[in-house]
Amino acid sequence: MPTTVNAFGTHEAGKPLTPVTVERRDVGPHDVKIDILYCGICHSDMNYVDGTFGPLAVSPLVPGHEIVGRIIEIGPDVTRHQVGDLVGIGCMVNSCRTCENCQAGQEQYCLKGNTLVFGAPDPAEPGAHTQGGYSEAIVAPEAFVVRVPEALDPAAADPLLCAGITVYSPLKRFGARPGTKVAVVGLGGLGHLGVKMAKAMGADVTVLSQSGSKREAAKALGADHYAVTGDSSAFTELANTFDIILNTVSAPVSLSDYLGMLRLHGTMVNVGVTTEPMPLEVFALLPNGRSFVGSLFGGIAETQEMLDFAAEHDVTADIELIDAQDINTAYERICASDVRYRFVIDGATFAEPKQA
Amino acid sequence: MPTTVNAFGTHEAGKPLTPVTVERRDVGPHDVKIDILYCGICHSDMNYVDGTFGPLAVSPLVPGHEIVGRIIEIGPDVTRHQVGDLVGIGCMVNSCRTCENCQAGQEQYCLKGNTLVFGAPDPAEPGAHTQGGYSEAIVAPEAFVVRVPEALDPAAADPLLCAGITVYSPLKRFGARPGTKVAVVGLGGLGHLGVKMAKAMGADVTVLSQSGSKREAAKALGADHYAVTGDSSAFTELANTFDIILNTVSAPVSLSDYLGMLRLHGTMVNVGVTTEPMPLEVFALLPNGRSFVGSLFGGIAETQEMLDFAAEHDVTADIELIDAQDINTAYERICASDVRYRFVIDGATFAEPKQA
Repeated sequence: MPTTVNAFGTHEAGKPLTPVTVERRDVGPHDVKIDILYCGICHSDMNYVDGTFGPLAVSPLVPGHEIVGRIIEIGPDVTRHQVGDLVGIGCMVNSCRTCENCQAGQEQYCLKGNTLVFGAPDPAEPGAHTQGGYSEAIVAPEAFVVRVPEALDPAAADPLLCAGITVYSPLKRFGARPGTKVAVVGLGGLGHLGVKMAKAMGADVTVLSQSGSKREAAKALGADHYAVTGDSSAFTELANTFDIILNTVSAPVSLSDYLGMLRLHGTMVNVGVTTEPMPLEVFALLPNGRSFVGSLFGGIAETQEMLDFAAEHDVTADIELIDAQDINTAYERICASDVRYRFVIDGATFAEPKQA
Repeated sequence: MPTTVNAFGTHEAGKPLTPVTVERRDVGPHDVKIDILYCGICHSDMNYVDGTFGPLAVSPLVPGHEIVGRIIEIGPDVTRHQVGDLVGIGCMVNSCRTCENCQAGQEQYCLKGNTLVFGAPDPAEPGAHTQGGYSEAIVAPEAFVVRVPEALDPAAADPLLCAGITVYSPLKRFGARPGTKVAVVGLGGLGHLGVKMAKAMGADVTVLSQSGSKREAAKALGADHYAVTGDSSAFTELANTFDIILNTVSAPVSLSDYLGMLRLHGTMVNVGVTTEPMPLEVFALLPNGRSFVGSLFGGIAETQEMLDFAAEHDVTADIELIDAQDINTAYERICASDVRYRFVIDGATFAEPKQA
C-alpha cells in the first residue's frame, strides 16, 4: 500500500512552494526506501517550478535532486544496499539500461531518455510521475542509489549528488591532474565545487569572475589564481593558458573570449546551461585545436567513484542548512546570488514544518 | 645571389593571376632548394588573392601551398634530405620552434605565429615575404620539408600536403579506426580525401551532402553510406550515430542539426572555415557529451606520418592536372564546384607558359 509522505511542492508554475503530500509506492523487489535526511536546492529546481523548462509535468510537482538519506526498507532482491546504509540519489532514478550509453555506464545520456528524479513518467508506476527530494522519504530502484561514505558530513556531501558529479565528470574526462591548468568560470554551487574537485585532482586552478568581489572566497576554496573578466585585458593576458575551462555560468558568454584562453588541445566545457544560442566563430576554435563541449551530470558508477573520491580528498560543499519552510526565501536569495554556495534543506523539517 | 624564378601571381587583390617573377634566396646552411613539379590549388589560395583574407601582403603575391618537387640543392648543414629526393611543402615553411606547441610537434599552432608558405614576413630574409608554390622553384628550411614516398604518384599526392593533412590530423586525433563511424560533410577537395583517409583507417564512412547528386561519386571513393541533408529527415534518422563528423564545408551550417547526429562522446570537427559566426545552442552539445572542435592542418612530423600512411594505404587525391595558364579558369570552376576534386598545376608550365 503506497505511503503518503509530506513534501514541499507547487500546484502552479511560478507560485511559491507550499506543504503538499505525495504517494510513495510500495517497495518493489529491487527498490529501496530512503528516509530523506537532506535535499539540496539546485538552480534547475527553480527552472522546473517557475515554468522556464515548460509547464508542470504533474500537480503538485515536488522538486529536489540532491538527496541524501538512510535506507529504511529494502526489497527482497536488493543486493547492493542494506537497511541503515547512508545513500544518495541524484538527477535520475532509472534509465533503459540497455542502450549503448547505459551499457557504457553513461545513464545520464540514455538514448531512450532516463527517468529524472522528479516530474518524469515513472516506468515503475504506469500513469504516475516521479516526485523529488523535497520530501520525507523516497522509493527508488537500488541501481540508481549510490553509497555515501560515512566519512563525509552528510549535509555537506548532499550537493555532490548533482553539483559535485556535474563538475567531477568533465574534469575527470578531460584529464585534470597535477600539471594541468583549469579555469572555473563562475563561483556558485557548481563553481565552488569545481574549484575543490580540480584542486583535489591536483590541477592548478584559476577562478574567472566578472568582478573582484569573490577573490578572497576563491582563495579560501583553494584556488591558486583569480582573474577579473569584467576587465577585458584578462582575456589577452590569459590567452593560450588553460587545458580546461569549466563554464558554470547559466547565461550566454562571449565564446571567442573564453576559447582564446585555451592552450593546445584545450577544452571548454559548458555545464551551465542557457537556452539562448551563443554566436560561435570557427576561427576561435582553430588555434590550438580547441574544443567546446557539453557535459550533463554523470553516470551512476561515476557518481559512486566521485563520492569515494570526495571522501578520500575530503571534498564537500559549503552549505547553508535551512528548514523546509524557508525554501521560497532561499529561491529568492539564489536569484540574488546571495548564497555561499548551496542551500540544503534539513529533511526532518518536511515532516513537521515549524510555525512561522 | 638570389635566383629569379617564373611564377604566377597577382599585383592587385581580385585581379586574375598573371605570369610574374619572384626572387628565391640563396640556399642557406639549413635550406633546400626544390624544383617544383606540382602545386595544388586550394580554396584558401583564392581567399588570399581575392582579398577575402585582407589586403595583399606583398605585390606580386604568389600563392600555392601544396608543393611537390625534387631537391636540386642543399645547404651544407642539411641532414634530412639529399639532392634528388622527392619532397613536399605544405602550408608553412617556418615557426618559432621553441614555444610549447612547436615543442609538441604542433607547429601549425605556433604561439608566436608560424611562417606561412606565401605572403608572410620571412624570418630567413628580413624585409622580404614568402612566395608560394605557383612557381618554378622554392627555397625553404629543411625542417619544414617532408619526404614524399616514391610509391605515390607525385601529382596525385600533391594535395595531401594541405588537404590530406587537414583531414588526416583530426581523424587520427579523434580515433578513426575499425568500429568507428565517421561522417564527412561536403565532398570537395578536403571531403573526398576525408572519405579516403577515414576508409584507410578502417572506419565506417557516411557522406553527408546537400543533394543526391554525389551519391555515385561517394561510393566510388569508398564511402559506405550516403545521406542527403537537404531532406531534414536525415538528421532524425541519423541521430546519435557518428563518432566523428568531419565538416569540410566553408560556410555556416546548422550546428544543432549536425551535433544531434553525434553519439556518446562524439566530436564534430570543423576543418572548413567560415568567418560568419554560427549560433550554437548548448542544449545540442549536452546529450552524449558532444564536442565541437576546430582543427588546422597539422604539424610537420604528423604530415610525414600522413604521407607514409598514404603510401602504405595507397591514398592520393583525385586530381585534374592543368597548365599554369589555366589557373584563372580553374578558380572559376572551383567557385562553380566544377572539379573532382582538386586542380594540380603542372610545375613545368610555370617556366614556359603555352601560348593561348
